Parts: sequence; structure tokens; C-alpha cells
Amino acid sequence: LKIAVDGMGGDHAPYEIVKGCVEALSEMPAEIYIVGNEEQIKEELNKYKYDETRIKIVNATEVVTNEDEPVKAIRRKKDSSLAVGLQMEKEGLVDVFVSAGNTGALVAGSLLLIGRIEGIDRPTIATVYPALDKAALLVDAGANAECRPRNFVEFGIMGSIYSENVFGVKNPSVGLVNIGVEEKKGTQTVKDAFQLLQKTHLNFAGNVEARDVPQGTVDVLVCDGFVGNVILKLSEGMIATAGTMIKTKITSSFIAKIGALLLMKPLKELKKDLDYSEYGGAPVLGIKGAVIKMHGSSKSKAVKNAIIRSIPYVEKGVVDIIHDEIIKLEEIE
Amino acid sequence: LKIAVDGMGGDHAPYEIVKGCVEALSEMPAEIYIVGNEEQIKEELNKYKYDETRIKIVNATEVVTNEDEPVKAIRRKKDSSLAVGLQMEKEGLVDVFVSAGNTGALVAGSLLLIGRIEGIDRPTIATVYPALDKAALLVDAGANAECRPRNFVEFGIMGSIYSENVFGVKNPSVGLVNIGVEEKKGTQTVKDAFQLLQKTHLNFAGNVEARDVPQGTVDVLVCDGFVGNVILKLSEGMIATAGTMIKTKITSSFIAKIGALLLMKPLKELKKDLDYSEYGGAPVLGIKGAVIKMHGSSKSKAVKNAIIRSIPYVEKGVVDIIHDEIIKLEEIE
Repeated sequence: LKIAVDGMGGDHAPYEIVKGCVEALSEMPAEIYIVGNEEQIKEELNKYKYDETRIKIVNATEVVTNEDEPVKAIRRKKDSSLAVGLQMEKEGLVDVFVSAGNTGALVAGSLLLIGRIEGIDRPTIATVYPALDKAALLVDAGANAECRPRNFVEFGIMGSIYSENVFGVKNPSVGLVNIGVEEKKGTQTVKDAFQLLQKTHLNFAGNVEARDVPQGTVDVLVCDGFVGNVILKLSEGMIATAGTMIKTKITSSFIAKIGALLLMKPLKELKKDLDYSEYGGAPVLGIKGAVIKMHGSSKSKAVKNAIIRSIPYVEKGVVDIIHDEIIKLEEIE
Repeated sequence: LKIAVDGMGGDHAPYEIVKGCVEALSEMPAEIYIVGNEEQIKEELNKYKYDETRIKIVNATEVVTNEDEPVKAIRRKKDSSLAVGLQMEKEGLVDVFVSAGNTGALVAGSLLLIGRIEGIDRPTIATVYPALDKAALLVDAGANAECRPRNFVEFGIMGSIYSENVFGVKNPSVGLVNIGVEEKKGTQTVKDAFQLLQKTHLNFAGNVEARDVPQGTVDVLVCDGFVGNVILKLSEGMIATAGTMIKTKITSSFIAKIGALLLMKPLKELKKDLDYSEYGGAPVLGIKGAVIKMHGSSKSKAVKNAIIRSIPYVEKGVVDIIHDEIIKLEEIE
């Protein structure tokens, strides 16, 4: 198995990326190609001891930044680590490309350089939402702000296949994020999506209210990218704000400070439960290749997990399964 | 000042409603008309000592339940406490109507019986979101799942007027909930709303990401009712889930239990900071009358606060101000 990793993408590149690659190497038999500035990556690699036969550097002279406009970045920075990595995946030189770089550019590049699976209208990004009872796969996690009813069904099918093959969930339940549990709730688009989802062979669990998202009632949560973004960002903001509030209250009293000290260990465990970096990266689904997006702020542990989690994605042939399943969608429309 | 209160609406009616009315009475000079089953309300009132000259019962034989279909409920249950209260407001027998009943029926009834303000396309419900730095008014809080760009502007204008007159915020800042801070982010509808909002005289602060909502960066948050519902319900769900998680972790260790005991007081203060019942009810904005929705699970304190908060809404003439301001909207379209 050959894995290309974008050595220059993300807030902590190349340091944490290279560190994560070295850590991953010791836990799996695959080969890693780190794409990026050869000199910088070599310098980072020199800090570690590792199996040198399984890490190679692929030089790329440019870097796509978060400020770059996605489509322009792909067209103009042809020798960027992001574009070179996608090109390697397209040409079959590697089995999967993993990047913590500009999300928009990665999706646009996946479309422009690798291309969509026949029958897929909108490729998407799926992210794990670490809910309490069970982690859910959230599709779309922000790639498509505006969606047609059919797109929701594509998201459901692709999310279900990913959940089953990568997380090993049997017959994953699929829920539609909506403003009420009743069938007639929501916008016309969401109502139509409900009707279409019911016609599929998916294990469709109906509507899921946002209130039930943190508890975790289904395996796959389907929504448009606007709502997906709101769910992810609001959850992130609530956790950050809760932290600030508790700290403010805690410093206000000596007794509370002692209380907080004693609560440290369980709170740390709690934080680990919520730690998305345990779950690996977010797949770009619906394209004719395996591309995984890591969070921009990924540290070595998240990088390592994204690399390791990419293996079942490749070995189970998720891309081919999506291709075979999406054809059946024609019948219900 | 005369205030009609729906004695039969909500999960704890008539008990908590009547109790809240009695509690409000002692803190303000207004008269209260409790609408509902005369016998039941009299029985509740008999439990308290209060100024009998300022509470009257208006008999209504029917009750709109949460299972009732909104428009049908208004058309068929003409002698329901909800319909009778709205009718009293329409006829000017009272200055404001406050209800914890079926939200859909209250909005539909406000439209059918009282009517919209000229120039308003979509009446809405606005709710306080108790963020950390400052509480924001969230408009739309779930009334209109599907919106046109103009509706966002109406929400901004009405929210701004409410925030200034009822909460006393000078020149309230208005933010548009979006998936990024850049002008070109979001769906076409949201992008167009951004352009329109910029043309108004509002103190428009641009886009607000969901991540910043719990921190509280603006006074008025504008969004469609689908997104508004997701924000409110997800926040509710996160708080509930965090409670469960902390409890689970706490009971797992004796040391943590002691820690939790010592943290009790600051955590209770924290909960109070987040308690929406402190902020009163949610106004139905854009109709030719004053109607306030209380949370269905309102207890007496929330009922009392909703009643007291309705006074500045009436006395400042918010409905007339909206009427005067909305006319100016024609100029920017």
C-alpha cells in the first residue's frame, strides 16, 4: 500500500505532519510519500529514527495557503504539494492522498484533477461527529452549502458505505437533520429528500432534530453543507465557551479551585472522548480516487490516525462500492 | 396596562401559569386577564393571596394542544384560550397577549386573527440566545424554515428595534449567521441577504460563524428558521449531553465525587447564566399587535419574567416603530 501525504498543508506543517508520518510507519506496513519542500522535509525527517525504505520525499516547490482561492490555486500552483499529491493519486502512483491543507482547494482539486464518480452530482466531505452514545458520520460537513434533494440521498449512500467499510458498522442507520421528527417538517428540499431517502435500500431512520445530535442516535447524519458547518462550528464553539466559563467560575473561589483539581482526571477523559483526532481524517467522497482531508490544526497524533484509518478505506475499495451503488439510484428517481 | 395570559397553554398549565401571574402582579401595576377554563383557573388562584382587583378570568372552553395542526386549530377551536386571547389583543381589549401554547398555532393565529404589519413579508419569532459575553436576540428562531433575502433584512430590522427598545441596547449590532466571515460565503440567498443588509441603516456587523455564537459577538443574530432551530436545539442538546457525561465520569471515582461537590456552587451560577427563563418570552414580530410566546415548559419564574418583559415592548410602541421603519425598506430594494 502506498500513501501520499501533503507535507506542507495545515497549521503545523511540516513539523507535525512529518512526525505523524514517522509515528504511523511503526504501526503499519505501508509506504509513505511525503510531498513538499524536499529540504524542509528532510530536515524534519532527520530528527527521527525510522524504516528509511518506507518513507520517500516527493519534491514540490509551491504551497497552497488557506488564503488561496480554491480553483485558482489548483490551476496556477501546479507544482504545489496539494496538486502534486492529487496528481499522484490520479495516476495511480499511490493508493490514497492525505492532506491538512486548504479544504476548498482539496475538494476543487479532487474534482478537477481526479474527477467525480459517474452518477454522483456532488462530491462531499464527511466528518466524524463524536457524539455520546455513538460517533456519527456527518455528511455534508461543509463542502456544498446549497443542495438538491438528490444530493442528500447521495450523501446518505456514500456515508453508509463509508461507515460500514471503514468503521465496521453493520447496516448503518441514516438520519436526516431536520427541525422536527415529523415527515412534513422542514424546507421543500428537505421534505423531498425525506421522500427520496425512504425509497432507497438504506436503513433510513427518518428525521433527527439537532437536539439529539450530541447524544448520538444514528450512524450517519445527512444534511446540506450549510447546516453541517453550523453543527460542527457551533459544537466547537460551545465546548470552547464552556471551558472559558468553567475557568472563570473556578478562579472565583478557593473551594471551587480544589473541586476543579479533583475533577481534572475525569474531565481529561471526557475531553478524550470528544477528541476528533482519534477518528482520523475526513474523506472526500464521490470522486474517482481516495483523498482524505485532515483538520488544519492536526498534530502528529491526528496525522498518524488519518494515515492509518485510510488503509481500510483503500483496502475495502470504498470508491468502487460507491460507484456500484450509485447506479441503483437512477431507479428511484 | 392590560395583559392577557393564556391560562391553558404549556406543559405546566394552568398551575405554573397562574402562579407566575400572581408573582408578576406584585412587581408591576398592570392588570392581568387569565384566559381559560374558569373553574380550573379559579381553583389555582384560590391558593394565593393577591390584589383581586387586578386579576380577571376570561372563560374559554377549548384548549389548543401541541398535537393540533396550527391553522385548523385556529379555524375550529374558536373558543380556545389561544384564539380568545388573540382576539382580545386584536380588538384592543388588552395591550399584549402572552402564551406558552402551541407555537405554530400562535404564529398562525397571530397572522389570521391580528394580521401582518404592512410591508412585512414574513412575521417571525425572536428568542434570546444567552451567550457568554452578551445575550443575543436570535431571529428567526424557527418560524420560517424557508426564507427569501428580503426576509433576513426584515428580521434584522425587527430584531434591532426589539433589542434597542426592550433590552435597552444602543445601536444594536446585527450579524448574519454564515459558514464563513467572507462576504462571498454561503448560499445564494444568504449572499443576497448580505448585500441587502449592507444597504440598510442597521449597524450591520457582517457574517458570524456558528463557532462564535456561544461566545456572543453581536446583539442580533439573523438567520432562516431552519438554521435558527438547529442553533437553539443543538445548544440545548449539548448542555444536556455535557450534564450526562459529567455525571457519568463523576460517579466513576470517589475523588471526583468530592471534586464535584466542591464545584456545585459555581456550576449552579453557571446554569443561572444560561437560564433563558431570566430573559422573558419570545415576541412574535411583524404582526399588528403584541404577542409573546413563552417556552412550553415555562415554570412560574419564566411566566413572571415574560409578563414583566412584555411591558417595555408595549410601552415603547415596538409594533408602531416596526411599521415606520419597514416602509423605508422599499428604498433599498
